[in-house]
Amino acid sequence: MTSQQSNLACYTDRQMEIRPELDLNSEVPLYRQLGSYLQSLIGNGDLLPGDRLPPTRELAGQLGLNRTTVSAAYELLETDGLIKGSVGRGSFVCGVPEREVEGLNWSRALTASVSTSTGPARAGLINFSASRPSEMLFPVEEFRESCDEVLRSDKLRSLLQLGSPGGYEPLRHFLLKRSGLARDSDDILITNGCQQAVDLLRRALVRSGTKVALEEPVYPGLRNLFVEAGAELIGMRVTAEGVDLYSLRQALEAGAKVVVLTPSFQNPTGATIPAAARKLIISMARAAGAIVIENDIYSELAYSGGEAPRLKSLDPNVILLGSFSKIAFPGMRCGWIIAPRPVIQRVTELKQLADLHTDQLSQAFLLRFATSGRLEKHQAKMIAAGKERLRAVEQASRKYLADCRFTLPGGGMNLWLDLPDGLDSSALRGLAQQAGVDYLPGRFFSITRPLDSGLRLSFAGLEPQEIRRGIEILGEVIRSANGSKEDPDGASRPTFAMV
Amino acid sequence: MTSQQSNLACYTDRQMEIRPELDLNSEVPLYRQLGSYLQSLIGNGDLLPGDRLPPTRELAGQLGLNRTTVSAAYELLETDGLIKGSVGRGSFVCGVPEREVEGLNWSRALTASVSTSTGPARAGLINFSASRPSEMLFPVEEFRESCDEVLRSDKLRSLLQLGSPGGYEPLRHFLLKRSGLARDSDDILITNGCQQAVDLLRRALVRSGTKVALEEPVYPGLRNLFVEAGAELIGMRVTAEGVDLYSLRQALEAGAKVVVLTPSFQNPTGATIPAAARKLIISMARAAGAIVIENDIYSELAYSGGEAPRLKSLDPNVILLGSFSKIAFPGMRCGWIIAPRPVIQRVTELKQLADLHTDQLSQAFLLRFATSGRLEKHQAKMIAAGKERLRAVEQASRKYLADCRFTLPGGGMNLWLDLPDGLDSSALRGLAQQAGVDYLPGRFFSITRPLDSGLRLSFAGLEPQEIRRGIEILGEVIRSANGSKEDPDGASRPTFAMV
Repeated sequence: MTSQQSNLACYTDRQMEIRPELDLNSEVPLYRQLGSYLQSLIGNGDLLPGDRLPPTRELAGQLGLNRTTVSAAYELLETDGLIKGSVGRGSFVCGVPEREVEGLNWSRALTASVSTSTGPARAGLINFSASRPSEMLFPVEEFRESCDEVLRSDKLRSLLQLGSPGGYEPLRHFLLKRSGLARDSDDILITNGCQQAVDLLRRALVRSGTKVALEEPVYPGLRNLFVEAGAELIGMRVTAEGVDLYSLRQALEAGAKVVVLTPSFQNPTGATIPAAARKLIISMARAAGAIVIENDIYSELAYSGGEAPRLKSLDPNVILLGSFSKIAFPGMRCGWIIAPRPVIQRVTELKQLADLHTDQLSQAFLLRFATSGRLEKHQAKMIAAGKERLRAVEQASRKYLADCRFTLPGGGMNLWLDLPDGLDSSALRGLAQQAGVDYLPGRFFSITRPLDSGLRLSFAGLEPQEIRRGIEILGEVIRSANGSKEDPDGASRPTFAMV
Repeated sequence: MTSQQSNLACYTDRQMEIRPELDLNSEVPLYRQLGSYLQSLIGNGDLLPGDRLPPTRELAGQLGLNRTTVSAAYELLETDGLIKGSVGRGSFVCGVPEREVEGLNWSRALTASVSTSTGPARAGLINFSASRPSEMLFPVEEFRESCDEVLRSDKLRSLLQLGSPGGYEPLRHFLLKRSGLARDSDDILITNGCQQAVDLLRRALVRSGTKVALEEPVYPGLRNLFVEAGAELIGMRVTAEGVDLYSLRQALEAGAKVVVLTPSFQNPTGATIPAAARKLIISMARAAGAIVIENDIYSELAYSGGEAPRLKSLDPNVILLGSFSKIAFPGMRCGWIIAPRPVIQRVTELKQLADLHTDQLSQAFLLRFATSGRLEKHQAKMIAAGKERLRAVEQASRKYLADCRFTLPGGGMNLWLDLPDGLDSSALRGLAQQAGVDYLPGRFFSITRPLDSGLRLSFAGLEPQEIRRGIEILGEVIRSANGSKEDPDGASRPTFAMV
């Protein structure tokens, strides 16, 4: 052993133990070692300002050191302004080291993370992993015009001033009217996109232990919010016709107080609940006294088929969430909640606590973009583009994904794929990335079920030729992993996924 | 008695009691009364879809009604699609009333409010109640130019796309550099103003029961956030030299884990902590292992005297909050947190959960406004305007508020006033409003102390002549309420408020 572990301890007036580990063989003199040790006690807060250090004679005796060594260490600290000697009274701590000290124990101080990593992103891949529009479709000229009109209006000054927690009044008025189903008993709150709408509703409706029923697979940003709040989550299975009614009934019987549904083009499955089932859902939820939150951010991106009535139109108690993120500009955080007045009153209070109000300039830009007719024109373009992309998905899937089960959505941005039996979408992802394609594995969207055989293909942000090429590559990866031979006819068998 | 209260009850298969109150003298036929009653049971969820109604004969017998009356009521419900008859099996509930039904019990479903009303606003008053800049000082031309430059850049398309939770990268980089004190161990998160910065830190650091020390009087938006989280609040007294060190020590000894301070021009007191005290605060907090959050949103509005070092410059563990709301545009929600990496990592996760990210366009506008030199120019203008307004406060206060105690701030937007003994600022407010002046009473800013004798005058949003006239009126109201004679000399005695 080359170092002396001092076995004796010396105590300050506050009974703080002084027990340095000094290395006799070190090139660093002992007085400097002792000085550094005392400095660390001060830096860590083990020694507090006002604390008296042991007299040099006492500390030297206890540690088996020469008294001059201790005195030299004290002088060092005094020079650094950390202690101050007072004749006849001893030396007192009077400051903290100026240089950078050890950080606080942040891992203990911080609340636990509930976020889910999507794994590392890779450049140059055909990326099916983001449920968002292609920025190449953004109508930047029309948007610029809308901004110019707002910036040159006499409203600019007041838009830059503090606003109302509920949102920019003209936008609130416009959106209530545009929804086509707000009643006199309803009101509206403008939020920073739909994500904040759910966050505020969570704060308004969910206490620790509240039972919340979510579709499974589910958008993780939604799940994680409720997990963070300490809610008890109940996953409801999703079929090609949206939430499974038997699962819903089970959730309600289990005591679900809040039910969150995306009835049209659900993320991640693309599934839509038919009209008849919507009526049943409402009557079941109402009978159970459960609160229904209708996430309606995809319904305006309908590519085929008739639209089913929104849940909100079937029951005034439904809380409706909307956003421009999917049909216009996701980078501008603007969503809304339309709900009975008591709900809006509470979430508006919470909005004020959360961030006072949503950015006013953006609200005014989006309002101008909408009221000038540019939104409608752009939406038509987005629907046409979506149709074209969905067609590419359809053709390529029938040709290259014959081994998989999938249901083509009638709108939105996502397709759910079930791999052939025995394949795991998480394991397959590495191979897919190597081959040049990325997607999000089913596991990412689960609550209690593993969903390992499923995966999400988000097609809206890609060009049709990228979609075709990407699905072709994915098909090759799957067939290769599955060890099956290629089927030259590509017999299509789109069936219910996730039944 | 004109109505028959039926004393017999009939039960469904599920033992749901059917006991209508029928009015024999009503103009509404009995079958319609019974039909409405059954409809309400379905609407309320007392009868569930799938439930079987009692056979007509049985219900008629129990209620003492003619069987045709019951049959007619059932037919009514069947016509409305609420029940469905099945030969040999009976009638089953199959739907819910289409028309608007009673709302859910929202007051029970919603979490309790913690917000504080500032009371009704009145128009036409000289309003000292808002801590915000005057919109007449907004440099709208320079701002428009900045916006134009961004809107016409090739970055527009990507600004409208989904961004990063941490914020717009060039803005993050700029703000870290501008702060002048971020270290390699630090990182930054862009938030929707300082309010959201505190909200996210609360979610990262505060569990139910965590002890949080706040200055008292305190900005209510800060207090309410921690109350909502179930934190245990400890109020620290504020003197003319900022937080009282003895109060801080008591808070730390009581176990405060998080200490939130506004060292410069605190809201609502305007008080600033001197440099020497800042060093002591840091060593005390560090010794106690407490986390210090430094709310630095006012320090750039310094009108007089030298600047004290920011707490963050004294200890790398300090969490620093900044914002452009006070020196530029409050309606654009843009603030930031500079803190050690583990903290930023956690709050960035929470930011993503809360609203994905802050509006990107606004971040780019503010960045352009700052990097083009326009912010610096505007800030100089704001400081000049603030000086002028503070001078008006000073002159008028010395002349008209001689009965009160106050300390003139060296910057910021607020002055705290202590009324003569025995006067209550809440009670006085009504008189002040009648006389044409408004302010926020001390009670609004309290945690545990009543603060009834204090009030906040926010002067930054008013013109100098409004300030002079407003303080003159307030002085008259106070003297009148105090029953004291006017002091023609207006002997000034600015002393420490809230000692």
